[in-house]
Amino acid sequence: VSNGAALPSSVERLIEALSRLPGVGPRTAERLAFHLLRTPEPEALALAGAISAMRANTRPCAVCGHVSDEERCRICRDTSRDLGLLCVVEEALDLVAIERTGAFRGCYHVLNGALSPMSGIGPGQLRMKELFERIDAAAEGSPVREVIIATNPSPEGDVTLLYLQERLSAKVPSITSMARGLPFGADLQYADAVTILRSLEERRGVE
Amino acid sequence: VSNGAALPSSVERLIEALSRLPGVGPRTAERLAFHLLRTPEPEALALAGAISAMRANTRPCAVCGHVSDEERCRICRDTSRDLGLLCVVEEALDLVAIERTGAFRGCYHVLNGALSPMSGIGPGQLRMKELFERIDAAAEGSPVREVIIATNPSPEGDVTLLYLQERLSAKVPSITSMARGLPFGADLQYADAVTILRSLEERRGVE
Repeated sequence: VSNGAALPSSVERLIEALSRLPGVGPRTAERLAFHLLRTPEPEALALAGAISAMRANTRPCAVCGHVSDEERCRICRDTSRDLGLLCVVEEALDLVAIERTGAFRGCYHVLNGALSPMSGIGPGQLRMKELFERIDAAAEGSPVREVIIATNPSPEGDVTLLYLQERLSAKVPSITSMARGLPFGADLQYADAVTILRSLEERRGVE
Repeated sequence: VSNGAALPSSVERLIEALSRLPGVGPRTAERLAFHLLRTPEPEALALAGAISAMRANTRPCAVCGHVSDEERCRICRDTSRDLGLLCVVEEALDLVAIERTGAFRGCYHVLNGALSPMSGIGPGQLRMKELFERIDAAAEGSPVREVIIATNPSPEGDVTLLYLQERLSAKVPSITSMARGLPFGADLQYADAVTILRSLEERRGVE
């Protein structure tokens, strides 16, 4: 953003910091900065404080890698969760999306990404070792019965799924993946060919 | 956003603070919060610091009302500016948009809004008194030759334009408005530089 000499440097620095956020272009950053300038001071400082507080008060859960305020996250601390059912996700936001359904009572493992040979992301860059160690350790107490591999329906997600299937098949009785098909509320005529193909291939009997 | 028990309270508070920003819905706020969680700590804290620093280091310019880091803003401090040519804008962002053309060498006056009888915004809610006093004070030294009323091409902007024309016609030799190259209903601050430039060049006397 070139504002010439029109803006104080502190405003320009905020515009610059805001435009580093994903999906925020220079004009949006400018609008957001001016909003934070005009809004009552406590509201602007609350946002600044919330960023610092989040960084100070969170860390990855020592068990599953989800964002947490203690050594173990709220889900891993929840004794009503089924330790034998493990859902593997790429990102913590995927976990949040599944939790929003309220239907899953197992535990999670966050990989922090997906395998991508093209981008040089191998198993060592992800929380793979932690997953294998966790499953091995559980075998002696409450063993994992099923691993649901909930990676994204993308080339990277599929590579990750195949890798995990190969590495886990000897350790875990049941390895499943999320069903692929038409999303609820979508129009069949607007679905892409790959989605339609998968939906046809994995069609079910109507009961 | 209902995340159930899935997220630490510090993350939920940040999502809440982010979703108060204009144009940021709950899902975008969630994405931004997780970006700020994963990004290197200095970058996240730089954003928090930039917000606080901007609030601590800026104030309205005592002359024109533009955002400033000193008593008078950079434009009002610039001695090469033409004090006899005054451009009245609704918002500081409109000023920034005009400055971006690099074509205007006069001074500004920021009203902090437009007249809107429907919303109960009268002259007393805007920086009108400051404008009139400023023009009166200038009359004794370097009088204002021309006032360009660069309000938005909107009903509120037009009401403001007519009010200013009426109030200023006895004080200022020439009162002009931005040429209507701007499409009706658009916001000046989103217009491209060429459109703004043409509107400046083709400004007309208000009759």
